[in-house]
Formats: sequence, structure tokens, C-alpha cells
Amino acid sequence: MSVYTKVSEPELSAWLQNYSVGKLQALEPIKSGIENTNYFVTTAQGRYVLTLFERLPAAELPFYLELMAHLARHGIPCPAPIADLDDRYVRELNGKPASMVTRLPGKSLEQPGAAECGELGQLLARMHLAGRSYGGYLENPRGPKWWRIASRDVTPFLQKSQVKLLEDELQFQSDHRFPDLPRGPVHADLFRDNALFDKGRLSGVFDFYFAGVDCLLYDAAVCANDWCLVDPAANVELDEKKIKALLDAYHSVRPLQAIEREAWQPMLRAAALRFWLSRLHDLHLPRPGMLVHAHDPEHFRRILEARVARRAPWLAA
Amino acid sequence: MSVYTKVSEPELSAWLQNYSVGKLQALEPIKSGIENTNYFVTTAQGRYVLTLFERLPAAELPFYLELMAHLARHGIPCPAPIADLDDRYVRELNGKPASMVTRLPGKSLEQPGAAECGELGQLLARMHLAGRSYGGYLENPRGPKWWRIASRDVTPFLQKSQVKLLEDELQFQSDHRFPDLPRGPVHADLFRDNALFDKGRLSGVFDFYFAGVDCLLYDAAVCANDWCLVDPAANVELDEKKIKALLDAYHSVRPLQAIEREAWQPMLRAAALRFWLSRLHDLHLPRPGMLVHAHDPEHFRRILEARVARRAPWLAA
Repeated sequence: MSVYTKVSEPELSAWLQNYSVGKLQALEPIKSGIENTNYFVTTAQGRYVLTLFERLPAAELPFYLELMAHLARHGIPCPAPIADLDDRYVRELNGKPASMVTRLPGKSLEQPGAAECGELGQLLARMHLAGRSYGGYLENPRGPKWWRIASRDVTPFLQKSQVKLLEDELQFQSDHRFPDLPRGPVHADLFRDNALFDKGRLSGVFDFYFAGVDCLLYDAAVCANDWCLVDPAANVELDEKKIKALLDAYHSVRPLQAIEREAWQPMLRAAALRFWLSRLHDLHLPRPGMLVHAHDPEHFRRILEARVARRAPWLAA
Repeated sequence: MSVYTKVSEPELSAWLQNYSVGKLQALEPIKSGIENTNYFVTTAQGRYVLTLFERLPAAELPFYLELMAHLARHGIPCPAPIADLDDRYVRELNGKPASMVTRLPGKSLEQPGAAECGELGQLLARMHLAGRSYGGYLENPRGPKWWRIASRDVTPFLQKSQVKLLEDELQFQSDHRFPDLPRGPVHADLFRDNALFDKGRLSGVFDFYFAGVDCLLYDAAVCANDWCLVDPAANVELDEKKIKALLDAYHSVRPLQAIEREAWQPMLRAAALRFWLSRLHDLHLPRPGMLVHAHDPEHFRRILEARVARRAPWLAA
């Protein structure tokens, strides 16, 4: 469970005097999530998520919060930050920078089908188009520079064959850079559990705290490696129908370019590498006070091997 | 009916390419409203209201739209404008400046009781607190300066007794100015038909196109003259329970000051005067092309007379 900083109802009621959302009605800790402390908050006005930032540098918070505000006012169903009476999105609570955002309806799906992958593809493309006019800039904090640092840190814990896989992939990626790909703000962590469905429709995407500016195609690759497996619980192979549903729907909103087709296979490998590395890092070098059991890195090692071994499908012909 | 400018589905579909709200699913003209052309719009993403501005000066539109955006991001349930891909809230459609805002749930009430007046009072106070950090400025366009112009225009159409009522009231108002009252952005037209209730809760307030900066208490006076009548369909007397519910709820969020108590009676008269004058103006000097039957000015003449004759209730003791 991931409540690092406790907040009581009287503490929150006092804090909410600085907002225009009415009186506190209910406060409930959220157990999932590994980076921040989160609570569901219900007031006379509505339903919100309260986040106390445990780790993110204060200087980066405006990038994430302003990005969500930007996307929300373009019609993207993402959490909209609530401004306080001083007109700020971040306000200290119990010694931590904290924010309140709108709570979206719906539930995550464990086994999305091709139709849901299509919904995701459309929304991802709309989000990328809306993000183009966003003025903030933060390089993807889990990009190539970070891969180098993380691999150095985790190598001592790896078996020889794993070290080879890692080094080969870093070399491959450094030989396959695509500086001309369309870039912009990307979510960069849009796994199934960061999306909500309500009555069969994608009703929300959330957790933008790994967002950054990177290739737009990278976002689709992260999604493909999680959403488009034949059976996410049992294997790592890509389902052709799901991949095509994702990409075709994306393409119908933001047409994919020839250069993006070329980059697709390396991008799927890059997206696998990033999560293999972060999971290795969390497993072998956990942060002090980290209360959550780390995800198994093996899943993403197998995904990386599978993407190296076999070409993934692209758009329907 | 008030659709001055027609918009077809193909025209709107093409226009929506400039937004991130997904494909058009339905378009339906809205018959009420007298100032602008309005449509309900449903897209793959959600439900919106499209407004084509027929009369408002383009230079004033940012004040209204940015105010709604400001209030919405402070948690006030008002329409949130949707930005286009160029990150603007106003975009031309069929030769008119146009905007799309979120559509709120709920229905207007014709006969709100004391409980609903309390809901309104709370929300009004929260809106006023949230509005304090709004940077835009536009003087209330239906304030004292406009009263002078409008009375000159309508006087030729009035009976002698009406001219006397009007002149006496203008004199009274000019003798009772309250420059020290708390000021800020006010809705200034928050009649019952500009508010929505859903499951017994006030779920939205809309139509901010008469908003401006004025005394906050003026907003409460406009509401009182419409929401707090004993029977809005039958008479013009204030219901003590409803007035107290409105003001007590307001006071619990933004405490009313001694100077506001002093100003209350003149403010109710000012709010009655403003709508008597605008209804007289619409009746006797309709704008060219105005398609809607004007509201009866007599209702607000009677309200003004009643407020002159009898003191209205204030906060519960």
C-alpha cells in the first residue's frame, strides 16, 4: 500500500478552506500507485483525487499539472487540476507539495480487446494533437540518457546473458535514433491501469507523472507492449488485430508518416527496454521508505527478447 | 426561437477538425436564449454547447470565456470553454465568432424552495471567492451608466407614473452609492433558468454573457428578486425563508459585512431597476432581427415598487 503521508479529515477540511469546492464529505486512501500518496476526496461539489508528491522535484510539478490542465481544456478526458484561491495548482499539505484533480468515472480493464485498443488509439492521437500547443517543456525523464545511468546501476545484479541483452539493446538503440520523428508531450506510461472505461467507452486517462517531451510514436509503443498482447496475463506476444486496431484508429486522427513506420520496430524495443530497466532498478535499488512490492522485471525482459526476435505488425494495408 | 445563424452537420464536422473532441455525433438547435445562437453538440468525447455570438463585441468575448475557464478550474460547476488546436477559445464559424463549452447535467427549476435557495447561496459565495483571483476586467455593462442611457431611450414610451418611478429610483440610487462594498466578477444574470439541478443538487450555472465586475452583493440581489419570491408565477413579494436560506448559506462561505447589510435594500432596488429597464428597452426598441418575444417589463416594475414599499429580510438573527 502506498500512503506515505497520512492526512486526517480535520487536516483536509482546514486545507480545503483554500479552495472553492465546498465542504469535505469523505476521504479514502488509494492503495495502488507507487510514487505518491493518493486519496479519493468527496466534497459538496464533486469527486476529486488528492495527491501528495513524495518524490517528484517541485520544479517539475508545473509541467505535469499544466499539461493536464491544457489537455483537459482541449476536451481530453484526463484529470483537471483544481486551482486554489491563490490561483495555484500546488499547495503544501502536511509538509508535502499537494494537488487536487478531478476524479474520472470508469474502471480499468485487465483484458482490453481490439475495440478498446481502437478507443485508445483515437484518444492517444487526439491527445498528441492537443498537446502540440502546450508551451511547457520537460525531456522524457526515462529517455536514453536515463537508460545509460540505470544500466550502469543495475548491471552488477544481472546474469551474464542479461548483461549481453542489455548492452546489445543499448547499442542497437544508439544506432537507431530518429531525430526527425514528430515530437511533443507524451504520457509515456499509459498502461491499462492508467486508463478507465465506462459503458464501453474510454472515459479517462490519468497519472501523467512520467510525462515528458519525446517522439509521439513512443507513446503508442508503450501502449502496444501493454494493451496489445495476445493474453497480457500469460504471454508477451503481440496480437495482430489489437495492434492494427490501435494504430489504424490513431492514424485516422493523426496520420502516421513513412518515417514513423521505419521507427516502429526499434520504438517497441525502446519502450520494452525502458520498463525492464526501471523495474530492475526498483527491484535491486529500491528507494528508502518504498513500501510497495516492485513489479517483476522479467516480464519486460521477455517482451524485449520477443520484440528483438519478431517483427511486430504495423497499420492494416 | 433563437437560431439566428444556421449550422449544418457537414459544416460543424469540418469545423470540429480544429478541436480534439472526436467526431460529431449529433447537433440540435437550442430554442431558448435571446442573445446568441446556441446548439447542443454531441461528439465521440462528450456533450457540449456551441454558441455563435450574434451581438457581443469580439473584444469582450475573452472576458466571459476566460472567466468561465477560471471558475471551472476552481471547481465551480460552470461551462468550461474548449480550446481549439491553436489554443484559442473563439473560432469563426459561418461568419460569426463561436465557442464550444462543456454541457452541464441537470434541469432548471421553476419553483425552487428554501433548500435550493441555500444551494444557490453557497455556490454564489464560492464563485465570488474563486473570482477574486481572476485577472480580467470588464465593468458591468448593465450598471449605473447604462441605466442613464436606457432611461433616456425608453422614457418617451412610458406613462407619467412610470416616468416618476424611474426618475425617483435613479435619484435614489445616485444618493445611495456604496463604493466600499466588496467587488469582483459577478454573473449578474443568475435567474432560475440559468441554473441546473440534478438529484436535488445545484449542478451548474451558465450564461455568463452579462457578467462584469461589480459589487458582489449585487449578484445576490439579482438572485433574490428571481429565486426568493413567495410564488414566482403569481406575485413579487419576497419569501422570508427563502431569502434567509440564500443569505445564510452565502454568509457561511463568504461572511457578509456590516456595510453589505446597509446596502441590501438599495441593492435589491438596483437589481429590479436594471431588469425593468432592459425589458422596457427590448420591448420598445427591439434590435433589428430580434426574433424572440420580449419579456414583460411589468413584472420588474412591480418588483421595484414592492422593494421601495417594503423592507426585505436580511440574514437570520
